[in-house]
Amino acid sequence: MTAFKTLSAPVAPGGTIGILGGGQLGRMLAMAAARLGLRTHIYSDTEKAPAFQVSAGRSLAAYDDEAALAEFARACDAVTFEFENVPGQTAAFLAGLVPVNPGPRALAISQERYEEKRFVAGLGLKTAPFAAIDSRDDIAKAIKAIGCPAVLKTRRMGYDGKGQATIRNAKEAMEAFDRFQGVPLILEGFVDFAFEASVIAARGLDGSFAAYDPPGNEHENHILRRSTVPCALSESQCADAKGIARAIGEAFGYVGVFTVELFVARDGALLVNEIAPRVHNSGHWTLEACMVSQFEQHMRAVAGWPLGDPARHSNAVMENILGAEAHDWLRLAQNGSALHLYGKGEARPGRKMGHLTRLRPLTKD
Amino acid sequence: MTAFKTLSAPVAPGGTIGILGGGQLGRMLAMAAARLGLRTHIYSDTEKAPAFQVSAGRSLAAYDDEAALAEFARACDAVTFEFENVPGQTAAFLAGLVPVNPGPRALAISQERYEEKRFVAGLGLKTAPFAAIDSRDDIAKAIKAIGCPAVLKTRRMGYDGKGQATIRNAKEAMEAFDRFQGVPLILEGFVDFAFEASVIAARGLDGSFAAYDPPGNEHENHILRRSTVPCALSESQCADAKGIARAIGEAFGYVGVFTVELFVARDGALLVNEIAPRVHNSGHWTLEACMVSQFEQHMRAVAGWPLGDPARHSNAVMENILGAEAHDWLRLAQNGSALHLYGKGEARPGRKMGHLTRLRPLTKD
Repeated sequence: MTAFKTLSAPVAPGGTIGILGGGQLGRMLAMAAARLGLRTHIYSDTEKAPAFQVSAGRSLAAYDDEAALAEFARACDAVTFEFENVPGQTAAFLAGLVPVNPGPRALAISQERYEEKRFVAGLGLKTAPFAAIDSRDDIAKAIKAIGCPAVLKTRRMGYDGKGQATIRNAKEAMEAFDRFQGVPLILEGFVDFAFEASVIAARGLDGSFAAYDPPGNEHENHILRRSTVPCALSESQCADAKGIARAIGEAFGYVGVFTVELFVARDGALLVNEIAPRVHNSGHWTLEACMVSQFEQHMRAVAGWPLGDPARHSNAVMENILGAEAHDWLRLAQNGSALHLYGKGEARPGRKMGHLTRLRPLTKD
Repeated sequence: MTAFKTLSAPVAPGGTIGILGGGQLGRMLAMAAARLGLRTHIYSDTEKAPAFQVSAGRSLAAYDDEAALAEFARACDAVTFEFENVPGQTAAFLAGLVPVNPGPRALAISQERYEEKRFVAGLGLKTAPFAAIDSRDDIAKAIKAIGCPAVLKTRRMGYDGKGQATIRNAKEAMEAFDRFQGVPLILEGFVDFAFEASVIAARGLDGSFAAYDPPGNEHENHILRRSTVPCALSESQCADAKGIARAIGEAFGYVGVFTVELFVARDGALLVNEIAPRVHNSGHWTLEACMVSQFEQHMRAVAGWPLGDPARHSNAVMENILGAEAHDWLRLAQNGSALHLYGKGEARPGRKMGHLTRLRPLTKD
């Protein structure tokens, strides 16, 4: 096994951070790096990648093209990624050539829902009840243990509600199992939560930890619609939520920004739903409400810089601009919010085209 | 005379705004455009131009290279500039091919100190007393009218105290005149002002007007060190200052952001010192303290979009990072301010390498 490269000193201004992935998260990461005087180099397999528009350095190649990856690594002082579905082999190949953060372990675990849940439960943190489903035979046993309704999910590659099915009985579970055509699945107990929240947190190269105040998140059709900070969590729940993120970050030996999605149960318990090893849609409000946004925080961490202060100076509400809503840009530009558009072409239904953030005077939670 | 192109409709997201000049202002303009989903194309004669780092579109060519300028114009839906010393011929050539804002008149007047002062005085606004100096013979007459001490300045190309000399008597004036080797000069009465302030204002394509609250500005060695908002101007003085900017913007038929530098006399009078037809160092705090920064405001105006709300949500202090101070980036990254570094190489003495902005809770002026 090749030894992974590690950063021996912070990347100085003028240095180059490579970003694998060219969507809106990569775009906003690149812009945050530029604020700090860091250059970026975007690697994407899509010519129309929005992040290409804001960075002089670019590689257009497949994620398994080792020659292109090696050239990319040579152009960069450190590398990170904007999406959790980076092929493990790609991450490992790059990590042998250039410091890559977050590291391969966090990536591998967060790519696989069952491994992720086991990892979280192993830390003594709460989750919905869950069971691996590898065959039709597993279903009855799992339903008996977990109950119905429940959610059957693919273990890999799901996002925004893709790759999941709510099931109300064993028959629906069998049907859903067949539709997923034998890919490894996980059955998760349905949580009748009061609301959803998330913790966007960062861990520095020196092990320092910083977490933003948790926003409350509202979804429509499984896609984030709105994040609001402060949310309905009490002060002690906020502290608990940040503590959960800290425990996860420590266990990973994580470097960079990561996000813990939480279900807040009706009895106040905090259940870990998912870990995203990256900046997160529910943290976009930090661009306006904090001196150091989640994007800058991530670039600081992966460049080996000290973490910035995650305190917010204002309350905030972030709303996504989805699909055809983006056609209304001229009106959206006049509503007193901060407008962000991602430079995407086609406004397909549900596609994240941009977001709006409104600030309000700071109040306590 | 070729007719100048005008914008018939707002440039939609995905369109391209050309920026002539590739320094830190061009860089921050490009980043603001990207936030709105607009692409940029940077035109600079300097390979190391900081703005090249944050934009996929680039032209590296001399400002009088008409073939390169024509190609640049073809790549852009609208064009603007980041520095006032764009050659008039370049601006006029481009304006025949693509909508260019601000227009050639504002550029021509603000490039020439004597024309600028006459223009301002012609609007009934106050300035320091001034006189054109074209020959040694003009000096005695001018000193008699204006008094000493006074400041002898080149009419063109001065910035950050370059091209000016304070003179205490006719002999010093003669010596300074000889040092300037016959270029057209202006003598300006020395204003014993209480402090300096500036108005960063914008005028939209539809004639709408928006001005940020005026910061107070402190200089060291003729270079801006610090801008603070709110400043010591009273509420009615702030309104007057914005009114001065509005009158100037209207008289120019201006489109874009411009800056009026003011001397605040000990009796409270507001004297116009200089007009900059561009975003301004004293407006950098708007990046953090307003929902729409001066950079976004300018891109909105030149793209034909509605102007944004210039209200600030916080008080702010902006300090420049000059020359070798930038070597201290690791410490500056930890002081709780928003840190901006411009991607410049060599930290020459006095060179603007970056800035820091601190926010404080909002208070009235």
